[in-house]
Amino acid sequence: MELLFPFIGYRNDELYVEECAVKDIGNSVGTPVYIYSKAAFEYWFKEFDGAFDEVERITAFAVKSCSNLAILRLLSELGAGADTVSAGEIFRTITAGIPSEKIVFAGVGKREDEMEYALSCGILMFNVESEDELDVLNSVAEKLGKVARIALRVNPDVDPKTHPYISTGLKTSKFGVDIERAYDIYLKAKNLKFVEPVGVHFHIGSQITDVSPFDEAAGKVADLVKVLRDKGIEIEYFDAGGGLGINYKPDEEVPSAKSLAEKIVPYVKELGCKLITEPGRRISGNSGILLTKLLYVKRNDRKTFYIVDAGMNDCMRPSLYNAYHHIVPVVRGDSKEIVDIVGPVCETGDVFAFDRKIGKCKKGDYLAILSAGAYGFTMASNYNSRLRPAEVLVFEDRFSIIRDRDSFGDLIKGEKFFNR
Amino acid sequence: MELLFPFIGYRNDELYVEECAVKDIGNSVGTPVYIYSKAAFEYWFKEFDGAFDEVERITAFAVKSCSNLAILRLLSELGAGADTVSAGEIFRTITAGIPSEKIVFAGVGKREDEMEYALSCGILMFNVESEDELDVLNSVAEKLGKVARIALRVNPDVDPKTHPYISTGLKTSKFGVDIERAYDIYLKAKNLKFVEPVGVHFHIGSQITDVSPFDEAAGKVADLVKVLRDKGIEIEYFDAGGGLGINYKPDEEVPSAKSLAEKIVPYVKELGCKLITEPGRRISGNSGILLTKLLYVKRNDRKTFYIVDAGMNDCMRPSLYNAYHHIVPVVRGDSKEIVDIVGPVCETGDVFAFDRKIGKCKKGDYLAILSAGAYGFTMASNYNSRLRPAEVLVFEDRFSIIRDRDSFGDLIKGEKFFNR
Ligand SMILES: Cc1ncc(COP(=O)(O)O)c(C=O)c1O
Ligand SMILES: Cc1ncc(COP(=O)(O)O)c(C=O)c1O
Repeated sequence: MELLFPFIGYRNDELYVEECAVKDIGNSVGTPVYIYSKAAFEYWFKEFDGAFDEVERITAFAVKSCSNLAILRLLSELGAGADTVSAGEIFRTITAGIPSEKIVFAGVGKREDEMEYALSCGILMFNVESEDELDVLNSVAEKLGKVARIALRVNPDVDPKTHPYISTGLKTSKFGVDIERAYDIYLKAKNLKFVEPVGVHFHIGSQITDVSPFDEAAGKVADLVKVLRDKGIEIEYFDAGGGLGINYKPDEEVPSAKSLAEKIVPYVKELGCKLITEPGRRISGNSGILLTKLLYVKRNDRKTFYIVDAGMNDCMRPSLYNAYHHIVPVVRGDSKEIVDIVGPVCETGDVFAFDRKIGKCKKGDYLAILSAGAYGFTMASNYNSRLRPAEVLVFEDRFSIIRDRDSFGDLIKGEKFFNR
Repeated sequence: MELLFPFIGYRNDELYVEECAVKDIGNSVGTPVYIYSKAAFEYWFKEFDGAFDEVERITAFAVKSCSNLAILRLLSELGAGADTVSAGEIFRTITAGIPSEKIVFAGVGKREDEMEYALSCGILMFNVESEDELDVLNSVAEKLGKVARIALRVNPDVDPKTHPYISTGLKTSKFGVDIERAYDIYLKAKNLKFVEPVGVHFHIGSQITDVSPFDEAAGKVADLVKVLRDKGIEIEYFDAGGGLGINYKPDEEVPSAKSLAEKIVPYVKELGCKLITEPGRRISGNSGILLTKLLYVKRNDRKTFYIVDAGMNDCMRPSLYNAYHHIVPVVRGDSKEIVDIVGPVCETGDVFAFDRKIGKCKKGDYLAILSAGAYGFTMASNYNSRLRPAEVLVFEDRFSIIRDRDSFGDLIKGEKFFNR
């Protein structure tokens, strides 16, 4: 097998995920369909989790990146925890069998009902993003007669050098609290009866392919922990967030999880903390592809368009972030051409690739949009009243549907005519 | 009532939709919630449809802009047809009671099963976007023993001067066929046995606030119709698409539908065609608002953030197009401040407004995101495992839920664990 990514590659010029011919999945399940590899998930989870094996840790998978129950169960069997950002994600995580004591709950806009839900589930800790949230959480916890364990999400003001949309650790962002203000807020938290500070949290951005900002951020946060301890605030958990990038091109080099660990582990060891990490994309991104079919080849005097049956509603990243996804024909030939690969949605922005050189395809051929496992299905919508795709998990030479394609009935679920 | 938009405005400093206090809807249904006004839909539909009353016509509402069944039924009662772009939209339209002979079906990536569905529903016509599509449609129609009425979507190569994402009539776009090539393709269509050319179609873009490009486009297309008729190709329907813009600020001036009609109607009269129009945003945009609640006010030394309970998953336009939406407090006071209005989704791009001067609000207050009726709910997703909002229709002093908020069960519908 000539690999493009671990467990995804060509065998006799035909694309395989593990031992499954991608074409067979398309023929059996239809397109568009997300296809994940169980082995790839395991590979990437272990690559990440294993890199930190010198310290006691929870590798809390960022559920927002890929939230299918079967995937979460698979990761739970590998020992994963979960980084969640809504009651819905906590619900999924617990349904999939991830133990509540491995769940952290972040997000700048936690509602009271979500806090109640999280508290009643007994999650490990809340990653609190503002002073106000602390007060609300304290009163919700009081109402339930519980104590909410918290970490404060601090903003180390480090530039992660990534897309502005996914860079979150700067001062002008809505996330977290300025690190200089953290000390006062911890003191306040300590004095609240139904809140107990147990950790510190930071997350500097996503798709970061240079590990030095992690070093800088972890260093600043470690200094904060020392100051807090001096004041009697015991910090047990050091939550370093997610954000490690992946290669979106098969031949691109990106840092290993090990090289990230080398930046973070020394601080954690020195502090004697338990480490929490929140990798999302790094684990799911290259564990999945989006399979689509070429519906029409359309040429005018300036352009050739490959119109495929997946659209921006199925996979938003190219339209939303101008994100690059490598796209390959499922059956590979020799000739190439330069095309725009576009979806069927009635928007000019429904484009997967501009002026892309790709193996020449004809109507009916399958194309694979690679590195689609993260922020793929989770961002899908029914825009244009399109049915969200099915999801399939491959296990060696077998595959299993882990989410049915939407039906017409799903489209109108919960709608009703007006009652005069 | 001091109106911001027709049927939406302040009464004693409290926001109303028709005779309903928006606050009461929030208290009863929860937030975020889309709130539509029946009277506004009627107003905007009649403003548009009425402007063209000199000619025989179908005002085919662009379902993609707002597709709730109750809304489609309401429009069907006013005589609307439907512009659809997927089998799912045709399903909705027919379920809502819009007669199939008023349905047109556009889209660059029609699948064969969608063509079959549309043919078996007996829709008025297919707006064909490529030569290949013509062949596929012919063979699908043959299989069903039907004849598919078609219009060719032609690309008049007119610059609509709008956002590049929603400008569709240029040569480098994936839509339609170059107008110079149209003649040959019509000849071809005429010779296909199961396809019958009956119309011509163009759509030059969306949110167009200068009607002169419509004049230019309609003129070019009218010339094409004359050429076709000379060759014995009878063109009965002149489909001028949608795209007329709306004001996103209460005090902005935009052209009336009448002024659009003045550009198009003369051509249609001269040709003796039936007119089809496909307004979406113009009818739905200012007929709906998105109600949200202020969860947290967060200040740092550079910014004040209003963190609201609606996110980019509920309303994508600001994140996706950088679109401006006017946002107002539901209960109005005197003081103002400059804030970023952001959602709870864990993305920096989850922002509704940057550095916006707005009536000062506190935790728990409601805010209304205006002009959210078009491309609002239809683009919503479950990203971050968030529950898509409810939809409510106001009718004078009453309101009715026309779509329930998603439940946890909806989130995992169709998902299943992996079967080894
Ligand atoms: C707090 C937090 N943790 C973890 C992640 C996961 O990021 P990534 O998928 O880049 O690892 C995110 C992404 O938005 C986040 O906001
Ligand atoms: C073919 C067609 N018709 C009509 C519309 C509706 O446009 P608007 O909502 O701007 O009127 C669109 C929008 O994408 C379209 O593609």
